[in-house]
Amino acid sequence: MTDSTTPPQTPHTPTVLVVGTGAVGGFYAARLAAAGAQVSVVCRSDYATIAQQGITIHSFKFGEQHFHPYSVHEQPETFPGTPDYMLITLKVLPQIDLAAMVAPKIGPNTTLLLIQNGIEIEEKLHQAFPNTPMISALAFVCVSRTQPGHIDHLCFGHLSMGHYPPQPVQPALTQLVQLFKHAQIDAHATDNVVTARWRKLVWNAPFNGVSVLAGGLNTREIMDDAPLQQLCRDVMAEVVDLAAAAGHALADDVIEVNMQATERMQPYRTSMLLDHEAGREMEVEAIFGNALQRAQQLGRSYPHLQSFYALLRAIGRKR
Amino acid sequence: MTDSTTPPQTPHTPTVLVVGTGAVGGFYAARLAAAGAQVSVVCRSDYATIAQQGITIHSFKFGEQHFHPYSVHEQPETFPGTPDYMLITLKVLPQIDLAAMVAPKIGPNTTLLLIQNGIEIEEKLHQAFPNTPMISALAFVCVSRTQPGHIDHLCFGHLSMGHYPPQPVQPALTQLVQLFKHAQIDAHATDNVVTARWRKLVWNAPFNGVSVLAGGLNTREIMDDAPLQQLCRDVMAEVVDLAAAAGHALADDVIEVNMQATERMQPYRTSMLLDHEAGREMEVEAIFGNALQRAQQLGRSYPHLQSFYALLRAIGRKR
Repeated sequence: MTDSTTPPQTPHTPTVLVVGTGAVGGFYAARLAAAGAQVSVVCRSDYATIAQQGITIHSFKFGEQHFHPYSVHEQPETFPGTPDYMLITLKVLPQIDLAAMVAPKIGPNTTLLLIQNGIEIEEKLHQAFPNTPMISALAFVCVSRTQPGHIDHLCFGHLSMGHYPPQPVQPALTQLVQLFKHAQIDAHATDNVVTARWRKLVWNAPFNGVSVLAGGLNTREIMDDAPLQQLCRDVMAEVVDLAAAAGHALADDVIEVNMQATERMQPYRTSMLLDHEAGREMEVEAIFGNALQRAQQLGRSYPHLQSFYALLRAIGRKR
Repeated sequence: MTDSTTPPQTPHTPTVLVVGTGAVGGFYAARLAAAGAQVSVVCRSDYATIAQQGITIHSFKFGEQHFHPYSVHEQPETFPGTPDYMLITLKVLPQIDLAAMVAPKIGPNTTLLLIQNGIEIEEKLHQAFPNTPMISALAFVCVSRTQPGHIDHLCFGHLSMGHYPPQPVQPALTQLVQLFKHAQIDAHATDNVVTARWRKLVWNAPFNGVSVLAGGLNTREIMDDAPLQQLCRDVMAEVVDLAAAAGHALADDVIEVNMQATERMQPYRTSMLLDHEAGREMEVEAIFGNALQRAQQLGRSYPHLQSFYALLRAIGRKR
C-alpha cells in the first residue's frame, strides 16, 4: 500500500504543529502529511536527526514511509505564525506546563487536538484557553520509537475523538475525522470523549499496571496466569464502578469485551512497561492519580487502584 | 561480649542437627553450640566451605564468632544416629518435601524445632510424624549470609516458640527456652504459636510485599512515602481481619504497634527483598499463599493479599 498524495477536499491546506514528536506524534504527523496537510513538528531529544533526515516509519499497514516535516523545531516558539491544528502528543506528566508551552502559538484560527493517554487530562488546558476549540482523542495504536527518527508501527491505529467539553459532533470535528480518514486512519467521532477515556481506562489501568508490577510481562503472559488475569478483572471492576460513580456508566459487558479482545491480541508490551524498561517516566498520574483524585472527591476507595498508584509511583521515583 | 562456653545444666549434652544452614540456621546453630550443645549441620550450597572452615559470624551483639560444627553433612542421611533436636531452618518452598528429607533421622528421642517464616507451615510435618514432639518458633532477627560460611548479624535475635499443635507450655519447651537463654538468645515460650505466626504476618505481609513490588525499598523508604505507608496499613488490616476470622483475634493496637516499631527500626531490607535481589526463590506461598488458602476456606476476599500474591508469584517465576 502506498501513500495517497492527493490533498483532501478542504478549502485550504491545513497547517499542523505537532508538539511532542515521539512514536505516537511522529506516526500521526506522517499520516496527516500523507493526506496533504502542511505538518511541522516540535521535538526535543530527536531534533538533530529529524531536522536532518526526517522520520522513517516501518508500518505493518503502510509499509516503509518517509516523512519530511515542513519545518522542525526544538520549541513551539520558533514556528512562524499560528497553526490550524496544534496536535499535542506529549506524554502526560505533572511537571510539564503544557499551557505555558503552547500559549504563544495559539491563534484565533487554532484548534487544539490532544492525542494523549489517561483521564481528566483536558481540563487544565481548557481552563487556560477557554475560547480555543479543543478536540480530545484516544489513540488505539501500537507504535514504538526504535531509534532517533525511526518508528515501528506494529498494529491498530484508529482514533476516537470528540469535543472537549463534550458536546454533539460539530462540523469542525467531522472535517478532522475526514482528514484522518483521507490519511487512511480509521477515525471515529464520539459525542462524549470523557466517557470514552473512562472506557479506555478499563483496559489501560490493569494491563499497564500489572505489566510493570509483575516484573515485565506482555499481555499474553498476563492472560496465561490465572491469578494475574483475575487481578486484571478486579482492577477493571474498580474502574467500571468508579466511572459509573463519576457519571460515565459503561456497557455491562465492557470487562468481558476487553478481556476477549486482549485474549485475541498479539503479545503486547504496554506503553507503561516500555517506558519503564527504557528508563523513561511512566504516566502514573494520568492513568492512576487522576482516577484516584476523582474517587476521593466521590468519597470512594478502590484498593487495587490505590496500591497500583502507590507502588508504580515508588518504582518511577526509584529510577 | 564473648561466648559463654559453660554447658547448660541439663542431664546430658543435647545433640542438634540443623537442616538448612543458611543465615538463620547458621546463626542459631552457633548460639546453641556456644551454649554447649553438640551441633551438626546439613548444608548444600556452602558445604565445602563450612566443612573446611566452619562458619564465621559478625554480630552486632556477640562480636566476631567462629563456629565449628560437630559434623557437616550434605544430606541428613549421613548424620549418625538420631538427634535430640532436629532444627529446621530451611526456607518454606512448595517443592521441598521436608518430611521425606528428615524422616530417616527422626528417632524416639527427637524433638522437631522449626524456625521458619510464614503461617500454617507446621501441619504437613505434624501429619507425617504425629508422635514426634514439635516446637514451632518465630525468629525476630536480621541476619544475612555475606559469602559462603559468613553471616552478618545486624539486629534483634529473639525467638518466640510454642508447641505444635498449640498447648500450654510443657517442661520440654521450658528446657529449650532455657538452652537458648543460656546461649544469650532472648527466647520466650508462648501458649499459642499459631496465633503468634498470624501476629508476625501482620508485619511480614506488607513489608515483604511492598519492599519487592515498589522496586526494592527498605523499611525507611517505605515509611517515608505516605501512599506506601498507607498501603502497608491497609495490608495489615486485611491480615488482622483474616486472623480474627481464622480464630486468632489480635490486639486492637497491633497495627499501630507494628508501624511504630518499624518507624524506630534501622532501615531494613526484608528477607523477601534480599531473596529477590540475590535471584533466590521468595517465600510467596508461606507468607501469602497459605493465608489466601485460609481466606478461601472462610469465603473471604482480601484484595491486597490477592494482588500481592499474584504479582509476587509472577515476579518469582520471571527470575
